This record gives sequence, C-alpha cells and structure tokens, in this order.
Amino acid sequence: MEYRVDIRANGSVRTVMAEEGANLLEVLGEAGILPYTPCGGRGTCGKCAVRVEGGGAEPSENERRLLGERLAKGFRLACSFRIGSDICIHIDSSGEQAVIMTAGTRRQVVMDPLVRKKYVELPHPSLDDQRPDLERLLDMAGLSGSGTGLSNLSGIEMKPGILRMLPALLRSSGYRVTAVEAWGRLLSVEAGNTTSRLYGTAFDIGTTTVAAYLYCLESGKLLSAGSMMNPQRKFGADVISRIDRAKTSPQAADEMRSLITECVNELTGQLARNAGIGVEDIYAAVFSGNTTMLHLLYGLDASGIAVSPFIPVTCRTIRLDAGELGIGMNASGQVILLPCVSAYIGADTVSGVLSSGLYERDGYSLLVDIGTNGEIVLGGRDRLIACSAAAGPAFEGANITFGMGGVTGAVDSFTQGFRYTVIGNAAPRGICGSGIVDAVAALLDAGAIDETGALADDTTAAGLPQEVRERLTVTDGIRSFILVPEHESGTSGPITITQKDIREIQNAKAAIAAGIETLMAEAGISYDDIDRVFLAGGFGSTINVRSAARIGLLPVQLTDRVEAVGNASGSGASECLLSQRMLSVAEQIAKKVRYVELSASAIFSDRYIENMIFM
Amino acid sequence: MEYRVDIRANGSVRTVMAEEGANLLEVLGEAGILPYTPCGGRGTCGKCAVRVEGGGAEPSENERRLLGERLAKGFRLACSFRIGSDICIHIDSSGEQAVIMTAGTRRQVVMDPLVRKKYVELPHPSLDDQRPDLERLLDMAGLSGSGTGLSNLSGIEMKPGILRMLPALLRSSGYRVTAVEAWGRLLSVEAGNTTSRLYGTAFDIGTTTVAAYLYCLESGKLLSAGSMMNPQRKFGADVISRIDRAKTSPQAADEMRSLITECVNELTGQLARNAGIGVEDIYAAVFSGNTTMLHLLYGLDASGIAVSPFIPVTCRTIRLDAGELGIGMNASGQVILLPCVSAYIGADTVSGVLSSGLYERDGYSLLVDIGTNGEIVLGGRDRLIACSAAAGPAFEGANITFGMGGVTGAVDSFTQGFRYTVIGNAAPRGICGSGIVDAVAALLDAGAIDETGALADDTTAAGLPQEVRERLTVTDGIRSFILVPEHESGTSGPITITQKDIREIQNAKAAIAAGIETLMAEAGISYDDIDRVFLAGGFGSTINVRSAARIGLLPVQLTDRVEAVGNASGSGASECLLSQRMLSVAEQIAKKVRYVELSASAIFSDRYIENMIFM
Repeated sequence: MEYRVDIRANGSVRTVMAEEGANLLEVLGEAGILPYTPCGGRGTCGKCAVRVEGGGAEPSENERRLLGERLAKGFRLACSFRIGSDICIHIDSSGEQAVIMTAGTRRQVVMDPLVRKKYVELPHPSLDDQRPDLERLLDMAGLSGSGTGLSNLSGIEMKPGILRMLPALLRSSGYRVTAVEAWGRLLSVEAGNTTSRLYGTAFDIGTTTVAAYLYCLESGKLLSAGSMMNPQRKFGADVISRIDRAKTSPQAADEMRSLITECVNELTGQLARNAGIGVEDIYAAVFSGNTTMLHLLYGLDASGIAVSPFIPVTCRTIRLDAGELGIGMNASGQVILLPCVSAYIGADTVSGVLSSGLYERDGYSLLVDIGTNGEIVLGGRDRLIACSAAAGPAFEGANITFGMGGVTGAVDSFTQGFRYTVIGNAAPRGICGSGIVDAVAALLDAGAIDETGALADDTTAAGLPQEVRERLTVTDGIRSFILVPEHESGTSGPITITQKDIREIQNAKAAIAAGIETLMAEAGISYDDIDRVFLAGGFGSTINVRSAARIGLLPVQLTDRVEAVGNASGSGASECLLSQRMLSVAEQIAKKVRYVELSASAIFSDRYIENMIFM
Repeated sequence: MEYRVDIRANGSVRTVMAEEGANLLEVLGEAGILPYTPCGGRGTCGKCAVRVEGGGAEPSENERRLLGERLAKGFRLACSFRIGSDICIHIDSSGEQAVIMTAGTRRQVVMDPLVRKKYVELPHPSLDDQRPDLERLLDMAGLSGSGTGLSNLSGIEMKPGILRMLPALLRSSGYRVTAVEAWGRLLSVEAGNTTSRLYGTAFDIGTTTVAAYLYCLESGKLLSAGSMMNPQRKFGADVISRIDRAKTSPQAADEMRSLITECVNELTGQLARNAGIGVEDIYAAVFSGNTTMLHLLYGLDASGIAVSPFIPVTCRTIRLDAGELGIGMNASGQVILLPCVSAYIGADTVSGVLSSGLYERDGYSLLVDIGTNGEIVLGGRDRLIACSAAAGPAFEGANITFGMGGVTGAVDSFTQGFRYTVIGNAAPRGICGSGIVDAVAALLDAGAIDETGALADDTTAAGLPQEVRERLTVTDGIRSFILVPEHESGTSGPITITQKDIREIQNAKAAIAAGIETLMAEAGISYDDIDRVFLAGGFGSTINVRSAARIGLLPVQLTDRVEAVGNASGSGASECLLSQRMLSVAEQIAKKVRYVELSASAIFSDRYIENMIFM
C-alpha cells in the first residue's frame, strides 16, 4: 500500500509517495529534505520534530518525553514516525540554510590557477615538418614536458582518450585548438578558442554544512557561492556516527560517499546556473574539510579515525580526475583534496592556517575553530603546533535542551537584563551557540550560576534580585532558568537553560580552554606572547568575545586580540584553487604542523579539570 | 544451414562449424589459424592456398590463374573459397612458426628493473606513532615521494583502489606486506612476503611476427620465449593495409586492437605456463615494434602514417597501467610502449640501435633492418641519422611467384651449380628471402641475368653453359629460370624465378642501397668511415652477406664488417624491461635520431636509379 505525502515548506507543496510503514525521516531524506538529526535518527535528541496532519502509529515513549505538549499540536519525530495513511507534513525550514556562512575573509592572492587554457594555431604538417600530432600541439602550447618517470608520455601526462581523438580534432578544427593544462598535465584539447570559458570551484565539506564557491579562473572573480546541509547528517551529527554507519557494510560506505557526491554535484549545478555557465567548463575543484569528511568523499575506510590510536588512511594532498570521483564537472578536470595533519586536524584547519595568514606571522598567534571538536593551532612562521579538543556539539546546539543551529527563530544573543535577539526577528524557538554562551555569561554575572556551575537553588537564590529569582524553576526535577518566558516564546512553553545544559557548556569550554593552555605549555609561552587570536567558522564569527571570555571559553587576557575570520576553510580552498603557490603553502603547512594528542597528555587532563571552574 | 569444417594440421584434427557461404579464410581466422595473406585476402597473391576435401563453389578466375595444376589436387585459395558442404581442410603449418627468431644477441645489462618489490614489517600504530596507514607503509618502503605536482598523492602516485583497501590489508596481514613499486609509483600492496614472485615480459610487435620474452625481474633470467604470427596480417601483409582497414570504421579499429591484444595475451599465457608462473605476478611489459604496430596496439588513429606527409599521433614513450590496455597480466602492472622516431622509424629501430650498441660506438656504424621497409640508421655516439626505404615485401617472399616465409619447405640458400638447401629438409615448396638473394646472385654469376636485370633470352643465352640454358624457360609469356626442377619439387611443377620477380628484387635492393648511400651523403662520409654493419631481424640473420653484396643490396666494400644481431628489437625491449637506465637510453636515442625523409630527397631519387643496375 502506498500513501501520498504532501510536504509543505516555505509556502510550496511537494508530493511524494511512500510505502505503508515507511520511516518518515527516510521519506523526507529521499525527497532531499533533511531535518536536523544530531542523534543520528535514534529518537533521542528530539530535533527532527515536524508537524504532521493525518494518521500514523501511536507516539513512542521517546516522542512523548521529547515533544511533550507539542504532541497535541501535531508534532512528531520524523525519525520515529511510520507512515500509515496519506499525510501532510509542515516544515519550517525557512531559515535553516539562511545564515550558514559561505564567505570567509579572502586575502588577495596572485592569480596562478590550478588549471590553465592556451589557444594555439598550429602550423599544418608538411614533409618539412613531420612532427607528430602531439608534438606539434605541445611545442606550440609550451608543454613539452620535463621527462619524469611519473608521467605517461615522457614528461607529459594525459589520458589515452586525448591521444585517440587528437588526429581527428586537429584536422577538423583546422589546427586551431585550445589546450587545457594543469601542472604540465594535458587535461583536454578543445576545438577552436575556448579560453574565455574556464572555471573552478572551492568546497568546504563540513560535518554539518557544505559551502561552495564558483570562480572564474581567468579573472579570479567569485561568480557565485552557496551552501547546503551535509546530507550525511541523517546518519548523525558527528564524524563518529558517520564512520560507524559507513563501516556497517560496503553498501553503507557507498551510500555515505554518494550522499556527499550528490550534494557536491547539486551545489555545483546550482552555482553554475546562478552564474550562467556550463558545468563542462569547470575544470578544477578544491576540497577542504575535516579528515573524516575527506575520507568519506574519496571513499576511504575511515574506521581507524574513530578509535584510539586514531589512524587515518592518508593525510596527503590527493589529486585526481573529476571522472574518478564522479563529480559533475568536466570529467578531465582536476580535483584536489587538501592535505590534513592527523585524524582530528583536517584540511579545514590547514586551510584556516593558510587563509588567516597565521603561517606567515612572526611569533605566536592562535587559530581556534570551535565545532564538535575544537581545533586549535598555535604558532606562526617558525613553528606550528595543533590539537583537537573534544568539546562535544554543545556550541552547535546539540545536547542542549532548546539548542538549535544558527537559523531563523534561534536566540543568538543574550545580554544583561535578559534581553535577547532572535535570528530573522522571528518568535524564538530555541537558542544557538552564540546565544548559549551569552546566556551562561549573563547568568554568571547575575549570580544565578556559581563558580562550580551550579544553578542557584532555593537556598542560594535567596540573595539574588527578584528578576533573577523569578526565572529560576524546576522542570522534571531538573533545575533550570527561563531565558524566554512562555508568552514571548514561539514554542508551546518557555525556553529554558537547564543544569544539564550548563554542565555540557562547562565540559565544552573546559576542553577548549585546556587545549589552548596545553599548546601554550608545549610552546613554553604565556598569554603575553600571543599576538592574535583568529576565530574560524560560523560560531567563531557570531560569538560575543566578552561572553566567551566571561565563561572561560577564551582566555580573558586575549579578548583585545581576537579577530573573526569567517569560513577560513572555504577561503583557504579558494586560495588554493586560484594559486598553485597557495596550494604548495598548504602542503608545507600540513607538513609543518606538529600534532599534540590530547588523549595522551597529562597537561591537558590537569588543565581540563582546572577549567571546569567558572572564574 | 551450418556445415562441419574439419581442420587437419600437424596430425591433429580440429572441427568448427560454419554458415553456408562463409568465407574459408574468415572461418580459419576465427579458429585461430592464419594462413599467410600478404595481399590482405584480396585473392591476388595466391599464398593462402589450402587443400580442401569436399564441395565448394566453382574456382574463380584468380584461383585458376594462381593455382594452376594445384587446383586439380584439391588446392583452393582460402580467401576465395565459400563453404557449401561439410569439408576437410589440410594445412601444412608444420614449420610456419618454427624458424621465427625470438632471440637476439642480448648484451649484459645491470639489473635495475622497471618494477620492484619490497617486503616490510611495519610498526603497529600507537598513540606515540599516529602516522596514517599510507605514511607508515611509505616510510618503511622508502617511498615517501618527492612531491611533484604530477603525482596524485604529493609525490607518490597510486590508484584509489590501493588506498581503499589499505587499512583492511594492513590489519589482516599483521602489518606485514609487500609493496610493488615502479618509479616511485606504488602499484600494489600484497599481504605477506611475495618478493620471490616478480616477472616481466618484453615484446616485439612485428607486422608479420610477434615475439615475446618472459623474465624473472629478480634474477634477470629469461624464463621462456615464444612467438606467433601477428593475427592482424589477415588484413594484409603491410602496415598500409592495416591502417586502411582500421580506418574503415570504429569497429574495424577496435577489431584491429583486439586482435593484437589477444595475441599478446595468448603469448603471455603460453610463456607463463611454460615457466610455471601466474600471470598475476607479471608486473611489467615492454613493447617494441614499428610506429604503426604500436599505434594499433594503443588504439591510436594511425591514418596520418599512411599518407604524405606521414604524421603519427605521437612518438613518445607511453606508460600506462596494464588494465588500461586490457593486457592479461597484473592489472596494476606497468606497460611501456617504447619511443619511436617518425612514422617509419619505429621503436623497433630505436631498440635495435640500443641493443646493437650502435649508440655508444665511436665514428660511424650502420644498422640495417630489411623487411617491407628497410630501416637504416647511420651514426654512433655523436650523431644518429635514419631513413626508411620502401623496399616492398619481396625479401619476405611476397610479390615473388614462389616466394614464401622462412618456414619448412622454403629454399633458403642457393649456390653456384644451382645447389640449394631447404628449411626442415623437406621437399621444396617455394623460396624465402635469403634463397631469393642467393638465387639472383647465382644467376648474375652464371650470366643468366645481365646488369640491367634482364634474364637471358634466346639470343643472349647462346653463349651460356648448357646447364644454365636448359633452365631458362618461358611460362605464360614471361621469361623465367627454373630453380628447382619439377622432379625435385614438393609442388606440382618446377619452382622458378621469373623476370617479374627479378624486377621486384631490383627495386627492393635499389631502395635499400640508395637509402644507405643517402645517409652517407647526408653525413658526408665514405665506406671507409663505416666501422660496422649490424643486420637486424630474421632476414638479416639468414642472409648470405656475399650474395647480398653481389646483388648490390649491401655495399660490397662493407662485407667484412657485417654482424647479424638477430631480433634486435626484442633484445632492446628486454634490456628496457631489465634496466631503467636502458629505457632512458632508448628515450635519448629516439630524441637524438634525425630522420631523413627519402620521399623528399633528390639524392635518394638519383641513387635509386643508379642502384637499379646490377654491377
């Protein structure tokens, strides 16, 4: 039995058919709609709630617990809901992708793109000029090759396909052709002069978000940019869930790879349409991302990353033909997967070190990218050391009762007097990372949280002002603080922060702070020695630095030296697309960074405990 | 309607089924039996005669003319015969492949094979040693790569397949693996220690014959050798016929490629069986051959070679994975197609210059390879110039009335007193190249041919001895000379050489001699300056040098300096398989040789006319 599923989102309706008993999350996924599922669809996070009109099985225990009163309003967890009749789904995805950061702070780079075109008019062959077709072309295109044993034609590398079509192409084009070349490798030969059409893409494959940029490789101009949620997130919010899923079977590994490949292809197509160009003219793509995301993109077995001693398959720069990866661009185009440092210091961090300019600074600077893991790099021109602190996904809104991504309806700032702002000026539905940091800072300032992280109870609250005391409450036996009263809330009740949420934040901020201190101890330096702090990523760009320092996430000594660098990973990928020199700098950075394994560090353990305290 | 075709050859019987009206040559070809068809199956050379028992259509005009009395004995031309009943075919292929030369005069080379194996026991990963799987392997195998932009993993080149299986392979083998490497390219990783199994093949793809050699790449030992007729010869004896056929349609081009690929695979399998090794352990194959044969092997459009100004697609060394070429060996194994100089100076000549040692000699030496074309190289350490003289296939027995290959039943020497020897001591059925040269020399010495090449007629024969005069005859209005009287012949009549045959020989020897003289004129040297003459190929090894000088094929001044070097092309390919240095020498030779185009040379035209005379 098949049922009709109408999906209403953003004022439009889409209809798909689903088998009886089909899981709603999977049905939505197949339709290309991916609710936020940090728990991996296990029914424990409650984030995939959607409003359902029409029949279905009785709500599960999890749904009752997680949805509470929203059940009565028709909300169900997509991951738990099985289809038993024609239904209509309401999704408020209006803002889900609205504030994802695609643009970093791009430096000026000298154009020296990975791929070049050269138009040549070849002399026609004669008895006085019997050069072979290939030689005739290479001589004119300045591509005669240097003769290394690595290439397949004495110094020039090319696919048999080019040689097979070359005689006919030369003769039919009147010996006027455009050679497409990368690193002395002949990628393609096109009839006539096509030099005005040469494009490239740069990607940042995040665990949560995929950001893409389309450039003209002649002018270096950014033609369009866009982003999508990483479709792999239906298998969980963090890299471990993805690895665990991929290793269940070869099919699962293939699916994991297909998901990201399709996402890349969809973004590529979208950017090309926006810019009015053909994807066949895209000849280069550079991918940044964490080590796991790049493993999954290339189809490598990432299981060694998930368990101690955390061994990736490779951290090297990977170059391959687009055709080998199934990427929707010119099949002879070159794809670069940027180099990583270790299982948990990926190409995204390397790209950040590149595009922030950290690698060429004197003395010591810090780069901090706070996500599920907090990647931290300390150093400059002379040395680079890095660690990855397992902060957990709290700053991404996961494991926080009312946590959500930085999308419409999220409280994104919270100040003294308990005033707040909401993304999209909508009625607040939850709170995102920057809002959570603000809230904890405000509660500390107000005395509602003590230095151990305990929310004031009946006894300790006694000395607090009335407006603080009246927001303290207990829900299901857990102490909590009302951030948004019920009458201001866009949900069915007040938006709160619980004692458990505060513990999550405490753990997360302690991990980051201890990571920073461990690197400083390794380098033997003090805060005075640190010249600049670069905050990478969306969270780093929206966070209130004063609040971050107040809760001890960032050292208070450094607040005057903080600079947000946006999507530094995407910026680095863009630089490597536009400049071969920057790609080689990225390789040097990856080789230079010394990785400090925190799980084996006694210093880190000590500092972690110390940093649990709120100062 | 299908008929049964019994094929009797060498005492064994094979049966195939054929459609009514099927062409016998094609039926035999599909059964893997390839009669000699220098005319390309056009019914004009008469070489594909086989004895047929059973019905068939009436003999054609061509068959009547070419077979004469043999028709009555049941002989028919396979190319003209259409099947109309069950038949039995008798083929005397006893010697067809018997005397094909596989062994050249191999020099000693210092072992430095294209492919190497290294067994490594890797340290297990730990928190103190978090190197990625690949790095762990490369470090131990001494393969860390030099970081050129041409490779696909920062300095090391490998297929995604290796990286995809590496984690599981390392873990299941207890980190004991064998790396297979060529030029810093990681070809494969095998579980455990497999270093004792590493083999390579060398091929000489001749227009007529394919010779193959199997070597152990550890010891350099030749394990087995063999040869087969080039199956493409069913489309004609010369390169032009093959090119014309291949360009008729993409299917024809594919078939041409498949034929040679299957031949290579059959030889590979045969050699491996003889040596008791597995083809999966063959990791390298080096191919020599003329420019056209290598184009057809690689699947390149060779049509530019067939017409002025004679333009090949490429002359470069080609390296590729065996899998790309469909060669039956390890799919990751490396295949090398040796470099060529021009459309008509191929890798076979380059290999000959290499294995003869010509390239490292002081002063001037000559290399002469006489086949359908006579490739001639003059020079030494300081310079190399080469030309290709279109001698025609007369010395291979084609276009000669009783001409045949150097197989059982062929007269291969002919001396004064009209004594002769026959290959295999069989009853003579025809005459091969060396016999033809001897015969013409003997006839010149006997005065039966004058300096213009005219056979004695009634008038001029008057002064000749009785035993000469009695052998002069006229058949179908053409003067001829009886080489083997009817009573000694293995055919139904005498074996003769006709006036037309002598003209063919005159043309051929004039082309070779004029080629040699043209190069000498280019170099500005005389015979005294030529130190050595290397004769390559089967014909060059069997030819009587005195006879060759007598008819003016080779300069009489140089007869004391002639050295036969056998299959120099196969020897050169073997050297390149066993020594990377020799491969690089071959590349240097190919670049160094200056090609002299005879079709544009006034010197050649003059010398050609002069050399038509018998001195």
